Amino acid sequence: MFQEKFREGIVSARDFNREDIEYILKKGQEMIKVKNLDILKGKILATLFFEPSTRTRLSFESAMHRLGGSVIGFQSGDVSSIKKGESLADTIRTVENYSDCIVIRHPMEGSAKLASRFAKVPIINAGSGSKEHPTQALLDLLTITEEVGELDGLNIGIMGDLKYGRTVHSLAILLSNFDVNVYFISPEELRMRNRYKDYLYHERRMKFKELSEYRKILDVLDVLYMTRIQKERFADLEEYERVKDIYVFTQKDLKNTKENFKLLHPLPRVNEISPEIDKSEKAIYFKQTHYGLQMRKAILAELMRD
Amino acid sequence: MFQEKFREGIVSARDFNREDIEYILKKGQEMIKVKNLDILKGKILATLFFEPSTRTRLSFESAMHRLGGSVIGFQSGDVSSIKKGESLADTIRTVENYSDCIVIRHPMEGSAKLASRFAKVPIINAGSGSKEHPTQALLDLLTITEEVGELDGLNIGIMGDLKYGRTVHSLAILLSNFDVNVYFISPEELRMRNRYKDYLYHERRMKFKELSEYRKILDVLDVLYMTRIQKERFADLEEYERVKDIYVFTQKDLKNTKENFKLLHPLPRVNEISPEIDKSEKAIYFKQTHYGLQMRKAILAELMRD
Amino acid sequence: MFQEKFREGIVSARDFNREDIEYILKKGQEMIKVKNLDILKGKILATLFFEPSTRTRLSFESAMHRLGGSVIGFQSGDVSSIKKGESLADTIRTVENYSDCIVIRHPMEGSAKLASRFAKVPIINAGSGSKEHPTQALLDLLTITEEVGELDGLNIGIMGDLKYGRTVHSLAILLSNFDVNVYFISPEELRMRNRYKDYLYHERRMKFKELSEYRKILDVLDVLYMTRIQKERFADLEEYERVKDIYVFTQKDLKNTKENFKLLHPLPRVNEISPEIDKSEKAIYFKQTHYGLQMRKAILAELMRD
Repeated sequence: MFQEKFREGIVSARDFNREDIEYILKKGQEMIKVKNLDILKGKILATLFFEPSTRTRLSFESAMHRLGGSVIGFQSGDVSSIKKGESLADTIRTVENYSDCIVIRHPMEGSAKLASRFAKVPIINAGSGSKEHPTQALLDLLTITEEVGELDGLNIGIMGDLKYGRTVHSLAILLSNFDVNVYFISPEELRMRNRYKDYLYHERRMKFKELSEYRKILDVLDVLYMTRIQKERFADLEEYERVKDIYVFTQKDLKNTKENFKLLHPLPRVNEISPEIDKSEKAIYFKQTHYGLQMRKAILAELMRD
Repeated sequence: MFQEKFREGIVSARDFNREDIEYILKKGQEMIKVKNLDILKGKILATLFFEPSTRTRLSFESAMHRLGGSVIGFQSGDVSSIKKGESLADTIRTVENYSDCIVIRHPMEGSAKLASRFAKVPIINAGSGSKEHPTQALLDLLTITEEVGELDGLNIGIMGDLKYGRTVHSLAILLSNFDVNVYFISPEELRMRNRYKDYLYHERRMKFKELSEYRKILDVLDVLYMTRIQKERFADLEEYERVKDIYVFTQKDLKNTKENFKLLHPLPRVNEISPEIDKSEKAIYFKQTHYGLQMRKAILAELMRD
Repeated sequence: MFQEKFREGIVSARDFNREDIEYILKKGQEMIKVKNLDILKGKILATLFFEPSTRTRLSFESAMHRLGGSVIGFQSGDVSSIKKGESLADTIRTVENYSDCIVIRHPMEGSAKLASRFAKVPIINAGSGSKEHPTQALLDLLTITEEVGELDGLNIGIMGDLKYGRTVHSLAILLSNFDVNVYFISPEELRMRNRYKDYLYHERRMKFKELSEYRKILDVLDVLYMTRIQKERFADLEEYERVKDIYVFTQKDLKNTKENFKLLHPLPRVNEISPEIDKSEKAIYFKQTHYGLQMRKAILAELMRD
């Protein structure tokens, strides 16, 4: 079922219904228990990163090795034929001949969708512009279900850069398949765009509120998902300077949270979470990277195993 | 025989006689039928790319993995000790200790030849300046023999940048071992240099004509090999602007070709082939990348297997 | 013992006593005899290079493959999340989830120490600022013991940039565990810093002399260890220009050395060793890279095998 539905790859969180999510979460849970498998021996994953990455690229590559497979790719558009003027479609129609699955990160919105239209092998969207990052959202859900519990009924805050943050877009869309209460917390300038809110409200019937201040609702949240204000997405650096330190989560904030409260962050963080919190059991952003590896193992296994 | 003759590697198309070419084409054909082999298990390929590449590097790396081997290397001279002033000879005498074969792309003419003089392991020239790219030419011949048929008797056009294009130099030299009619099509400024033409005419007795216009001979060609006008090779950007769009192959051109006509291109392309052609059975430049993988599997197997 | 003591990794030459060094030298010697092993199958090495490298990175990666393991990593800080403002500690706490051991090169002094404080997996210091490069020093000792003989009693010159050269700092510290006579040869501007000399003299009771001229003592030396004057460490380029060609070892120098004299260099070299010497049996800097691979195989095996 899942394999059949996603045989062209994982491009957008919009393609997932509740059943799909529950299926892949179960597969991710199974991966937690096994460090190495040999099910992708002889398979090749191509990782095409036109934008810098540590976590996403390395976790996909580690996942591929843990499953017995091999990896080819590039870490920057500078070293590829893009520099010579090649189109993304041509790059894809080339690399599909060398690999069994392609992971792509590209600054252009819609890039992964475009790639999947041309490719004979599955495409995994590892970040397309400021729009989507579906595998990050899947690993976020795996983290929440493992560390907090059932998604239904949870109060979830999503805070920071909701305008340019691609992870929050994909996360909100996935969450709309569950019975959750979502709080979108951001400065006015970084509110989620109307097209996303309209989609979530009208098409997915999601329950959400918008706020500028998080302290008032901290005691009701089960989960707070923080994000970095992404300097590289701002055309206007002055605007960046004005908002960059608007939210800094501290030890004091932590005291006002529920006993089972968990703080997530897709990382990298800059100043928005004080390092004094790192050792708290409520701070699980490094565990998230562990679950990320497991989720990516699950995804690669589903897309490539025979 | 082949293994013995090329034990120092594949440096120049000039080293190949007809028998060598036919041997490696046969090996390439055999590779088409097998996706994975384990014959290079425990072997390490080093890919040293001082100039950017997508196809060549990734296809060598994919080929190595498909044969069970491992890969080390770099994708840009910026991240190596060259930046600290190291000579190419010293780099080679270092990397030969870490690997069983070295693939090198370097902007300097004669770089691969130099490397092979110093190395204990086989060197594969993956592009040396504007002079040679022999494995590209071998994969081009594999593509033609598989998709068109016997080389003898074919009418082959080679078009575009014949002055700076290293792939066309290696291709022309390899073709001179066969009974083909070659048409070199280029603007005056990008004619093939005399030293190549003299070599082809006087030493190899190749039959060729030079033209500036391709439309008149389109109906006699069995194969047209197009190339990109390479911006990065021009010292004078004005000259580049004058010639860059001189040849643009369109749907209309395609209609004037023979039924079995095939259009090849080493890729990347920029504007010289209209994307509307991509779906035609006559356009086989993406198939070329598939054959490239097979030819590189064949080459690596010959140079490294015990 | 060794495994237990270095379970957090190899961070500083200061952590090694004579017994540790002799143990790992023996392991390195054993590795010379075996090309491939399968003892690290299923293990993943992460190579995080924030500064350029050819030898160190590629030799670690080759060593890992020779032992049956896999590699992930990056070759430049530009392609990682550091560019987005991530701290080194956060990068480490992420990558430790994807790997079984981390090799790190970073421009900041103390970077490897910091990394080892945060990591659950062993850290290998592949160069931290101008301070330490312990695995280079270990491979230097393996080279000397294999090519010259027992360390005790040797007269060893260490020449060049003793101020900024991290390899010489680690080498001197390791040598202080043996009964050697050391000559530190450098221009005034590039003398070894007092904190190192104080440590070597007062805490390690090392016997050393400082000189500006090497020719007078050439006939007493068993080993001369040359280093590059590192342009990238100078704030003042004029100072660099003044000292860069101060030592150039020539054929004529070689004639004034003992019969069993050996010349080492960590490479890359620029002008400081004349290439005419390369073929002499006294010049063993390329053999050093071979021993480097063996020592790194030994280190990786110790740190990761079950």
